[in-house]
Amino acid sequence: MLKRYLPILTWLPHYNRRLGAADLLAGFIVTVMVIPQSLAYAVLAGLPAVVGLYASLLPALAYALLGTSRTLAVGPVAIIALMTGAALSGVATPGTNEYLQAALVLSLLSGAILIIMGLLRMGFVANFLSHPVIGGFLSASGILIAASQIGHLLGIELAARELLPRLAELVQNFPQLHLPTLAIGLGSLLFLLLMRQFGRASLRRLGLSGQLADLLTRAGPVFAVLVTTLATWHWGLEQRGVTVIGDIPQGLPPLTLPGFDATLWQALLVPALLISIVGFVESVSMGQMLAARRRERISPNQELLALGGTNLAAAFTAGMPVSGGLTRTVINHDAGAQTPLAGLFAMFGIGAVTLFLTPALHYLPIATLAATITVSIITLIDVPMIRQTWRYSRSDFSAMALTILLTLVEGVEAGILGGVTLSIGLFLYRTSRPHSALVGRISGTEHFRNVERHDTETASHLALLRIDESLYFANARYLEDTVYDLVATRPELEHVVLICSAVNLIDASALESLDAINARLNDSRVMLHLAEVKGPVMDQLKRSDFLDDMTGRVFLSSYAAWRELSRPPE
Amino acid sequence: MLKRYLPILTWLPHYNRRLGAADLLAGFIVTVMVIPQSLAYAVLAGLPAVVGLYASLLPALAYALLGTSRTLAVGPVAIIALMTGAALSGVATPGTNEYLQAALVLSLLSGAILIIMGLLRMGFVANFLSHPVIGGFLSASGILIAASQIGHLLGIELAARELLPRLAELVQNFPQLHLPTLAIGLGSLLFLLLMRQFGRASLRRLGLSGQLADLLTRAGPVFAVLVTTLATWHWGLEQRGVTVIGDIPQGLPPLTLPGFDATLWQALLVPALLISIVGFVESVSMGQMLAARRRERISPNQELLALGGTNLAAAFTAGMPVSGGLTRTVINHDAGAQTPLAGLFAMFGIGAVTLFLTPALHYLPIATLAATITVSIITLIDVPMIRQTWRYSRSDFSAMALTILLTLVEGVEAGILGGVTLSIGLFLYRTSRPHSALVGRISGTEHFRNVERHDTETASHLALLRIDESLYFANARYLEDTVYDLVATRPELEHVVLICSAVNLIDASALESLDAINARLNDSRVMLHLAEVKGPVMDQLKRSDFLDDMTGRVFLSSYAAWRELSRPPE
Repeated sequence: MLKRYLPILTWLPHYNRRLGAADLLAGFIVTVMVIPQSLAYAVLAGLPAVVGLYASLLPALAYALLGTSRTLAVGPVAIIALMTGAALSGVATPGTNEYLQAALVLSLLSGAILIIMGLLRMGFVANFLSHPVIGGFLSASGILIAASQIGHLLGIELAARELLPRLAELVQNFPQLHLPTLAIGLGSLLFLLLMRQFGRASLRRLGLSGQLADLLTRAGPVFAVLVTTLATWHWGLEQRGVTVIGDIPQGLPPLTLPGFDATLWQALLVPALLISIVGFVESVSMGQMLAARRRERISPNQELLALGGTNLAAAFTAGMPVSGGLTRTVINHDAGAQTPLAGLFAMFGIGAVTLFLTPALHYLPIATLAATITVSIITLIDVPMIRQTWRYSRSDFSAMALTILLTLVEGVEAGILGGVTLSIGLFLYRTSRPHSALVGRISGTEHFRNVERHDTETASHLALLRIDESLYFANARYLEDTVYDLVATRPELEHVVLICSAVNLIDASALESLDAINARLNDSRVMLHLAEVKGPVMDQLKRSDFLDDMTGRVFLSSYAAWRELSRPPE
Repeated sequence: MLKRYLPILTWLPHYNRRLGAADLLAGFIVTVMVIPQSLAYAVLAGLPAVVGLYASLLPALAYALLGTSRTLAVGPVAIIALMTGAALSGVATPGTNEYLQAALVLSLLSGAILIIMGLLRMGFVANFLSHPVIGGFLSASGILIAASQIGHLLGIELAARELLPRLAELVQNFPQLHLPTLAIGLGSLLFLLLMRQFGRASLRRLGLSGQLADLLTRAGPVFAVLVTTLATWHWGLEQRGVTVIGDIPQGLPPLTLPGFDATLWQALLVPALLISIVGFVESVSMGQMLAARRRERISPNQELLALGGTNLAAAFTAGMPVSGGLTRTVINHDAGAQTPLAGLFAMFGIGAVTLFLTPALHYLPIATLAATITVSIITLIDVPMIRQTWRYSRSDFSAMALTILLTLVEGVEAGILGGVTLSIGLFLYRTSRPHSALVGRISGTEHFRNVERHDTETASHLALLRIDESLYFANARYLEDTVYDLVATRPELEHVVLICSAVNLIDASALESLDAINARLNDSRVMLHLAEVKGPVMDQLKRSDFLDDMTGRVFLSSYAAWRELSRPPE
């Protein structure tokens, strides 16, 4: 029982020196790698850069205790930072104390929501975010994040938050273009893109091992940060107008207590819910993918508790909403992390930086962070996936398209909610007009197939109608129409057999419709039969009077119905 | 084309004297019978009684032109009147001019919504009101209507509109009990109940024909109105405190133009939508039932246009929202109506009453109308249906129970919306955890059945997994879990065959999951096969790369897979 809620107890007793060495190395690498990212995502959320560091400390401890994935690394992530920024700027002005406070409340609420969902074992809720909706949302978010960074890259101040006004402002304020910032921003961007595209191959060509080449390629942002920080310091670029991070308070995060303010809590409830679900979906699918590679499993419901715990930890240590991050997890995994202790070692590393090295970050240009963010989110924009979805299913594509459009125009919340609503609506619409097929016997076999697709035997007084959907309220009337049309067009009919091999449910409304169909067919002297009714459906039908009232019989198979009801050919 | 939108053109050319005589008689009977009802439902909606007469005039003409049912009679009905009262009292005070104006706007909006739905052929939307939700809603509405009349029956003035406060007020104000009103109210109520229960049998015992006995039984409300009106006039009961209808303006309804007021329209939009849908569902199911008896069909989408037209007609002639009414339709049908012309004859009859006989209604006691309403709504409270639903399905029952509870406590709108939301949610939840079964061969046959329910042949290296649900985003991950658990518990597995006879849809999310399952099984050296994939599903799969990547094959039948993959028993 305790092990279920504290997975650390399952692996810590077996910990040994070999694992320790691997985790220590991974922890060190992660420390160096994720610092630029953590700072950048805090800035993306409109928060002071140091909040990104704070949010990488205690939350990492919480995940090490509670998480079921061996290699997932938690902290600030791009999408959640974007959503956090959108939510907070609705209730406070960036740069104010209210804004900081609201970030704590948002973390607290997300944490509480995740924990409640975990205790209620409601991990399944995440399934309602379909792949196309999530994919569309991530792509659109990528564009939104890129647009939010473009001002920082060019040294142009932009006030508007929405995509289109922001782009309009960009064009209008273009004369403000600041050349030194542009040099740093676009220079870093170009360097990072080149590293990403050609770094690994070039380094290998220089004779480095694959692993080291990988590592150095991934360290691109660290180089960019070092070089541009040194350059800014050396040439005094801050005085020439390059925006830098500036003074970061030195020391461990303060303990914070999110205040209670009913209006604020209410305003942040929906954003917190969406942040929780999106963070959970992203984190769990990443965790599952990595666990599968190692033949391990993670427990989605425990992950809810673990992510809840990390967000509560963030709320009480001046942080921001956190989740499992793709970049940091991949770095951690590839650096050879064996257990969540790697995350703890990284925590100590980042803690040391926060304690001693923040003055060194003073001259770090915001433009460099913007370049880091922009490059890391490019992978979110997944054009091949959009094209595949278009090819596979117009209905899935339309849910995706709506998600993208709403996210870009109306913001992240409208995007997710609209996409989920449309995909549920389309599913319901589809099931409300179920496919059904008249089937006939494939000569000489016991198989029955659609008369329109296959060459089959049929009998004019017998209709075998296969229903390709569960029967429930939304399609009950449609079933009635189908049967009545059938009877109206074939006056010689004597038997209608409903083949229920694909009927997984008959609800009370559908039962009423079956009753009505039975009575109506009886008036026309046509008998109603059922075939291939599944066990659970049959059990339920027996709890009603329908089977007693039905004019015909229930056959085990379509073949049995055929044998009994089709006259031998004369 | 014109005939499709004006069904009158299909039957009027064939009209003859025999039909005319039948329709004329039915029209006369309906005129007499529905007057008390029309007055009563207007009062139930908080409107002046005469509005009920107005709403029985031009709307009837509109339905005669546009409707596809031969016998449906439109006018004010109990449920719609209750919903109208609830909607209007949210925006205006009964008795004021604003309240009357709001009634016109509500009719206009319902009319417009119905016509838009009709033009978009959206009749299917009504299917989302499941039987249990509609049943629960009608039962709860019956209770609400009875509670709304109890004050009128006892002569106690009640101000509260909600059920519990109203009952509390009733207890508190009980000393105001007005004996003459009580005598009229309870007397009428008792008379009507006895007529309903024993009227037909007693009259037949007196030697009347069955048809005449039916007619006189149904005329109970007319007798009650005549007797109590005469008594009130004769004994001057109005001066002794019995509330009567009072002066009714004589003459045809004025032409009215519903005013445009953005706030009011917005406030009435959701109520109008619900009134439209509930009215449509009730009206169409009644129309279908009666059409079926005569081997005719009605067109739901044309009925939307027809009901839309009747509500617009009501909006422009000082009326209230209308719909097909159960009582008036049954009277019309049983009185022998052959075509919608019967409705037109009744319209002239009611028109004549409005022109000349309204002074005679002055002394009609409100208590009599309350008794009429109470008796006519008793049938709405359908306890056997509630019990059957409980027995058949807990899930359907819970949607019904929520609808009843919310309708009683929070009102009609909350009741419907809550019930629909819960029933959709339960359906989604159910499909998100689909039933699946390992199947085995029933020896000597080509049939495959659940290994847990039947005695079957199986092979340890082969798993035949039948999926009993369409595969879509909500259950894609659940499918993955099911297959992974299967593989984890059976290390000797070499082949997994997914039997898709009940899979009517594989959406993009499920396709991703199948891809993931295929890759994961491949890692464990297990091959993935499909069997019994339906035509439309196969067509769609061919538009993706999945079939190329799949390690195994697609079999036409489970038996083909079994023959190929199961080794012959040694």
